[in-house]
Amino acid sequence: MSRAYNFCAGPATLPESVLQQARDEMLDWRGTGMSVMEMSHRSDEFVEIAETAEKDLRELAGISDDYAVLFMQGGASSQFSTIPLNLLGDKTSADYVNTGIWSEKAIAEASRYGAVNVVASSAAQSFTTVPGQDTWNTDPGAAYLHYTPNETIGGLEFDFVPDSGSVPLVADMSSTMLSRPVDVSKFGLIYAGAQKNIGPSGLVVVIIRKDLLGKARKETPTMMNYQVIADNDSMYNTPATYSWYLSGLVFKWLKEQGGVQAMGELNRRKASKLYGFIDASDFYANPIEPRFRSWMNVPFTLADDALNGEFLKGADARGLLNLKGHRSVGGMRASIYNAMPEAGVDALIDYMTKFAKERG
Amino acid sequence: MSRAYNFCAGPATLPESVLQQARDEMLDWRGTGMSVMEMSHRSDEFVEIAETAEKDLRELAGISDDYAVLFMQGGASSQFSTIPLNLLGDKTSADYVNTGIWSEKAIAEASRYGAVNVVASSAAQSFTTVPGQDTWNTDPGAAYLHYTPNETIGGLEFDFVPDSGSVPLVADMSSTMLSRPVDVSKFGLIYAGAQKNIGPSGLVVVIIRKDLLGKARKETPTMMNYQVIADNDSMYNTPATYSWYLSGLVFKWLKEQGGVQAMGELNRRKASKLYGFIDASDFYANPIEPRFRSWMNVPFTLADDALNGEFLKGADARGLLNLKGHRSVGGMRASIYNAMPEAGVDALIDYMTKFAKERG
Repeated sequence: MSRAYNFCAGPATLPESVLQQARDEMLDWRGTGMSVMEMSHRSDEFVEIAETAEKDLRELAGISDDYAVLFMQGGASSQFSTIPLNLLGDKTSADYVNTGIWSEKAIAEASRYGAVNVVASSAAQSFTTVPGQDTWNTDPGAAYLHYTPNETIGGLEFDFVPDSGSVPLVADMSSTMLSRPVDVSKFGLIYAGAQKNIGPSGLVVVIIRKDLLGKARKETPTMMNYQVIADNDSMYNTPATYSWYLSGLVFKWLKEQGGVQAMGELNRRKASKLYGFIDASDFYANPIEPRFRSWMNVPFTLADDALNGEFLKGADARGLLNLKGHRSVGGMRASIYNAMPEAGVDALIDYMTKFAKERG
Repeated sequence: MSRAYNFCAGPATLPESVLQQARDEMLDWRGTGMSVMEMSHRSDEFVEIAETAEKDLRELAGISDDYAVLFMQGGASSQFSTIPLNLLGDKTSADYVNTGIWSEKAIAEASRYGAVNVVASSAAQSFTTVPGQDTWNTDPGAAYLHYTPNETIGGLEFDFVPDSGSVPLVADMSSTMLSRPVDVSKFGLIYAGAQKNIGPSGLVVVIIRKDLLGKARKETPTMMNYQVIADNDSMYNTPATYSWYLSGLVFKWLKEQGGVQAMGELNRRKASKLYGFIDASDFYANPIEPRFRSWMNVPFTLADDALNGEFLKGADARGLLNLKGHRSVGGMRASIYNAMPEAGVDALIDYMTKFAKERG
């Protein structure tokens, strides 16, 4: 088929022009006679690719020189251990906010390395809301405060940046990174698995305030030591070069689209359209408190779960792919990251309208 | 330029037909309307890609069901910590053979987790030979015996598999994997960074005898726990899907070439030609004891180091790329992995002949 609209939560759809460029450069990058994936990571060519990607990311996200930008391997899940191993330092505990499945995974892994203080949780509300910060039981002596600004599975997104005082704020931005403007200077550490808004899987971007480097516990695997990775410009060992290159192409594309400001406006519009349609319908429903609905991941249910299979089959036939909700929650989920064009959202709403009319 | 002969030690040259297929499938894998890098790792399509790659690797390398095959992230360098964390168990020490820079890195990292007994070293011979096994000071109570069958930087390769008795044998096969037949049943664990004979960087293949699973220390990061990765078919988190796919294409290509038996014959011939030429010349030299010369990485020096720059420039102009030796040893190095055609070795010898005639 021609290119489909792929609503997968990750690995997710990439800009078509990025894939076209990668295709055209596959056998010979700019007359070098090599694919990027065949280049030495220490060659002038690749170092330029790598440095340009970092520079573009710094420009897009507004990252100052107070921060190191690391291109690491292992995905966000590896960071669940890397963060406590590097940031607990001489403290005994860290604060975590629990707003869904990814928060819970981060908490479970951190608990293996120190005491975790869950400062707030919306588990009792089935993760349909974000607890107000005035109710958080934070510890001013915590090593850091961790939260998940966007829960990919639940479709819950913070509409504010918590105030953590002098405690470093740590955020798993895997599925919200670069989707709207964020003030990086409020954070101690931001991490993001690439396979949503950045590039292919196998890469995780870490943005860390430099004063937080150099505190790793002695049992930290060297490949997980932020100081070592920073000191070696993310080339302590051979990095995931091709994923790094693809990410650089995505950053260029984002700049051409007008950066995170323009992207934020587009994403707000895409999400508003889809939630607006769902709310106006008596066939579809979304359970999240409107203020905290994710711009990136839109879960929804049909009036009758027995129709789920038919809904998905019809969607597939129209090239609207991967709308099945996560196996842990069921229902549907449309992930509408940066690279999902507004026309994809329109096509989805069009199909949902027809389906509800025929089967509702 | 057209496709060059790329002698890089890794990331290394890939088969041209593999890159062509990846290019052709970049925007639409087999009518799905998606690139492989946009597919959910849990989709039927990707699971088929992943399982086929594992099946082909098992067939190529002769891996029995007694072994788990893991597709992990972080490269071989991550395994330097992962191995002691998982295999030390209730033992207090591990045996390591030191034959070069990669052995030394593995030893340094393992020493952070337990006692390392260096059973033999050829450091005093500048790593130009492999100490005979009759001289090794092995410990029958060691958790495992680790060695590096091929030292990528030094160009030293074992021509035998050590007999480790009942102690599990562990091998860093990053730059020898699939280059010739190997009896996997002699090993407890084999690991290989992909970026030499397997695929793009960002992937490391681990072949582990199943009875060695389940012994991880409690501080082991979950993403480094072999048991967890095995139980989840290497999908505990989102794996490096595109690298996995590319590796599968390389495995298919290897099967078309006649597998590791045919590849071993070709690699022996390529290496013999190049070493034979170097030995017959009084302008070029290789310091390694002939029996232990690597089939994959051929370091050589010119009679006068002052000519190195001119040699490299002339090579570049002829599309013979990345011949500069590793920064830690200097001189030249030609890496001639599986994907380097014999014609590339011929072209290199032709250039070396002309250069020696003109400048020798």
